[in-house]
Amino acid sequence: MAIVLGPNQYGKAETRVVRIYRDGPRHEIHDVNVSTSLRGDFAEAHVTGDQAKVLPTDTQKNTCFAFAKQEGIGEIEDYALDLGRHFVDDIDSVDGARIQVDEYAWDRVVVGGQEHDHAWVRRGGEVRTTIVTVEVDSTSVVSGIRDLTLLKSTGSEFWGYLKDEYTTLTETHDRVLATSLTARWRYAAIDLPWGRVYEDVRRILVERFAQVHSLALQQTLWEMGKGVLEAHQEIVEIKLSAPNKHHILVDLSPFGIENSGEVFHAADRPYGLIECTVAHDETP
Amino acid sequence: MAIVLGPNQYGKAETRVVRIYRDGPRHEIHDVNVSTSLRGDFAEAHVTGDQAKVLPTDTQKNTCFAFAKQEGIGEIEDYALDLGRHFVDDIDSVDGARIQVDEYAWDRVVVGGQEHDHAWVRRGGEVRTTIVTVEVDSTSVVSGIRDLTLLKSTGSEFWGYLKDEYTTLTETHDRVLATSLTARWRYAAIDLPWGRVYEDVRRILVERFAQVHSLALQQTLWEMGKGVLEAHQEIVEIKLSAPNKHHILVDLSPFGIENSGEVFHAADRPYGLIECTVAHDETP
Amino acid sequence: MAIVLGPNQYGKAETRVVRIYRDGPRHEIHDVNVSTSLRGDFAEAHVTGDQAKVLPTDTQKNTCFAFAKQEGIGEIEDYALDLGRHFVDDIDSVDGARIQVDEYAWDRVVVGGQEHDHAWVRRGGEVRTTIVTVEVDSTSVVSGIRDLTLLKSTGSEFWGYLKDEYTTLTETHDRVLATSLTARWRYAAIDLPWGRVYEDVRRILVERFAQVHSLALQQTLWEMGKGVLEAHQEIVEIKLSAPNKHHILVDLSPFGIENSGEVFHAADRPYGLIECTVAHDETP
Amino acid sequence: MAIVLGPNQYGKAETRVVRIYRDGPRHEIHDVNVSTSLRGDFAEAHVTGDQAKVLPTDTQKNTCFAFAKQEGIGEIEDYALDLGRHFVDDIDSVDGARIQVDEYAWDRVVVGGQEHDHAWVRRGGEVRTTIVTVEVDSTSVVSGIRDLTLLKSTGSEFWGYLKDEYTTLTETHDRVLATSLTARWRYAAIDLPWGRVYEDVRRILVERFAQVHSLALQQTLWEMGKGVLEAHQEIVEIKLSAPNKHHILVDLSPFGIENSGEVFHAADRPYGLIECTVAHDETP
Repeated sequence: MAIVLGPNQYGKAETRVVRIYRDGPRHEIHDVNVSTSLRGDFAEAHVTGDQAKVLPTDTQKNTCFAFAKQEGIGEIEDYALDLGRHFVDDIDSVDGARIQVDEYAWDRVVVGGQEHDHAWVRRGGEVRTTIVTVEVDSTSVVSGIRDLTLLKSTGSEFWGYLKDEYTTLTETHDRVLATSLTARWRYAAIDLPWGRVYEDVRRILVERFAQVHSLALQQTLWEMGKGVLEAHQEIVEIKLSAPNKHHILVDLSPFGIENSGEVFHAADRPYGLIECTVAHDETP
Repeated sequence: MAIVLGPNQYGKAETRVVRIYRDGPRHEIHDVNVSTSLRGDFAEAHVTGDQAKVLPTDTQKNTCFAFAKQEGIGEIEDYALDLGRHFVDDIDSVDGARIQVDEYAWDRVVVGGQEHDHAWVRRGGEVRTTIVTVEVDSTSVVSGIRDLTLLKSTGSEFWGYLKDEYTTLTETHDRVLATSLTARWRYAAIDLPWGRVYEDVRRILVERFAQVHSLALQQTLWEMGKGVLEAHQEIVEIKLSAPNKHHILVDLSPFGIENSGEVFHAADRPYGLIECTVAHDETP
Repeated sequence: MAIVLGPNQYGKAETRVVRIYRDGPRHEIHDVNVSTSLRGDFAEAHVTGDQAKVLPTDTQKNTCFAFAKQEGIGEIEDYALDLGRHFVDDIDSVDGARIQVDEYAWDRVVVGGQEHDHAWVRRGGEVRTTIVTVEVDSTSVVSGIRDLTLLKSTGSEFWGYLKDEYTTLTETHDRVLATSLTARWRYAAIDLPWGRVYEDVRRILVERFAQVHSLALQQTLWEMGKGVLEAHQEIVEIKLSAPNKHHILVDLSPFGIENSGEVFHAADRPYGLIECTVAHDETP
Repeated sequence: MAIVLGPNQYGKAETRVVRIYRDGPRHEIHDVNVSTSLRGDFAEAHVTGDQAKVLPTDTQKNTCFAFAKQEGIGEIEDYALDLGRHFVDDIDSVDGARIQVDEYAWDRVVVGGQEHDHAWVRRGGEVRTTIVTVEVDSTSVVSGIRDLTLLKSTGSEFWGYLKDEYTTLTETHDRVLATSLTARWRYAAIDLPWGRVYEDVRRILVERFAQVHSLALQQTLWEMGKGVLEAHQEIVEIKLSAPNKHHILVDLSPFGIENSGEVFHAADRPYGLIECTVAHDETP
């Protein structure tokens, strides 16, 4: 039985590009982490070692830097589309490119109530993401958010679940619910006002988390995803991946102290992990 | 247009189970990190919040601990199969279970040339992994290794590659090649001597990395994968994911010092990332 | 020559306490990481193994949780003082206690312009810290901030430095300056409005970073520290530890592209590390 | 009241130097992480911004690479001494240098029972460390080990401890004891066979951990330190810092399963932290 090369790709991961716009006294900053990955006619590179069709990962890195200047980094989706199209259009051996960009947010320093022209504090918290896939005859944009850490101190229950011989969990009608959300949504188009949509999706996710009276993290995720799709027809589907960051009520009764949902241990591991997709129904 | 629930799953991630066998004076240790994930009839849990068919992730965790005692942890593949079958067979609402187990190796302490009965040093380095998927009518075992960090100080070239306007890389006929390998291989059967196969696959991967004169990491990976498949008919395919951990030759010429492949800067980011699958050809 | 026990301490590290205040509909959250460390008469615990004078670290953890309810977590300095005094005053064998508390900030979710009563987004970014040391006859409070990541895209030079045979760095009159600051300041008193001082110190650090035209990170740190001490007589001294997070101007000239301070590679390692103390002069 | 500059230092952290010796077919590898830190006459650099006495951290990095070739990296202590002496002796403004080196171990690949000439697997596990401080009239070498993770599955008790109102811990006469040890020992001389001493100290630490019947981690650490000092008169003192990595016996009784020290949950946080110094008594 012969041995064959299957699917393969290669690229440069985690090129840390910082782009400063300094056309006037008020600078702008875009701080991104770019990973490129190319697919195509690379069998010889594996099987015989002939690299004639392989654009080095070092060149891919250079391209990320050069495009940051030439094409610029406005919205990360456009930057990724530019890079992806370049690799597929301009390099013969490349059939497909997957460009992943994470963006780190910076807030302007405020001095005496005035925003500073060229100084920033890194915001921390959630990261804006995109994955753009360009192929010869198709292009997709999947944008997202990760590390969006949310907590509510009431308005969350968990009861009525299936019990088997290994079940010891106590039902609760009032618990802390916390998660560090990762969401990715697929767009129906490739020429959208990316930043505005991102801000609105983030707003909806956060608001729905807060407002939905939760019977389970599953239900909260569904409502968050549904809220996004109801407001955004240009989003085909959204995938939510949410660790249940357990906050365990500490038993203070041995010390004669009542603990009515006031003192919790924030546990690291294990954690629940709830994943679901919510989509616009495309059944005819 | 209606909004619908798509694929979904949930489980308990990273339950850290340590199992000691202490039937005689010479103890044994198995140190694992288990993640369980269940698929099935969970739409109501999302859409209405009704949890009647949801086995809590806390129960899944309890099951991991209970099975560590009752069924034991011998080979991680068998432990994962036991867990996966239990969830699918015994819980009505569950159609599929994905059980992921990482195992951390410990070496016995040696005192005066004698192996100690109940003391160990954690080995560090690579981690043995498995992902078992049990469905109602199928079962698959994909085992692997990660964090296997390899380096060779010669016997590696990179030249003859495609050059475009963004290419600045210099060709080389002698470089350091280093990677931190992740490999996953799919088995054709579910009743194999897992540990012996694992050790042999690891041996082949390491030996091929050392012995193949490399014209590119792509070629080295191909030869590593081919070596594994040639020796193991019971392995259907193997996926290799290998960061190219760049070791950059430091230019010492400004100090009047020649550097003939002796002093390198080990860079963190960006890194190349080469991924490929090697398979037994199943074309009829 | 005899072998003797020298300085020793023990405690419980990284107890993750979350305290919810829920006296009305509008909840409050305090999310902290507490480490306790005790010194005292513990020689027997080491030398003979007799634990009669050792308060278990498990008890220290319980105390952190119990005090979070009974004494409450208002300002982290007060919480740490309460814990430290308890261990020194109430446990005979304890002579000294070092209590370290990190606090993670949460922002209230805003829905339709209204702050939500019981839902938050974790802010990310910098962490507020304190280290309180209580001894039988003295108490000190050293508060601080860490992971405060700052960047300015101009207004920073580096030239006129010492050159030796290993110097290759090019002088610059315009560079990106970035750091992830850790600062710790020692208070002259133990009954201050901790939160207000913290906010003002943070404000000064950020503003001085932005406003000082920098000739080196050393000079910027000095000006930041001086700014804090000028405004706060109740602070005895401040220690600043600042990695120079290098942003390396990318050479785009091989591609015929000029790069006038617009495209940078954000490097991980190595990094500069500048540390200094600024103090009120106590020389008579 | 004037504001003054207090203690200060600066340097380059985490320069990742890999040195290959390739004088014959059998290569050698030394893989280190170097941090340099200089003290001296640097007040002007802070107060006026004048850098005339400041050797750039970039130059320090270059020096680490150049010395790796010229002086070589044999024992990390000698490499650090070379670097430290250079900075103090050759740079006028420098009074003191602190050189920290971590070394990562690599094992030769074995092919068919033969050690390979130029291929290695990174060992993982513990890291060998040194901190050398060179001042105008003194030099000290403090070497060590970190991330040495040890576990014993019996031979460990914890009982007879102090109990107060917050104590709930149950006494035990048989528990799992595990730690990830950091040890640092100060040498009495600066011309020792560093590698051989290191190996012997490591051996003693591991053996004593295994052999001492433990009544507490405090006692185990004391015996480990004492064992080192008894065998090594050239070591003045040793500091041990040991997290108590709690392995919590899982209660399986709700499932009708007995758990006699067989199934444990390896907890992440909080953890105990025991620190002590053991020294040769220098009292006259």
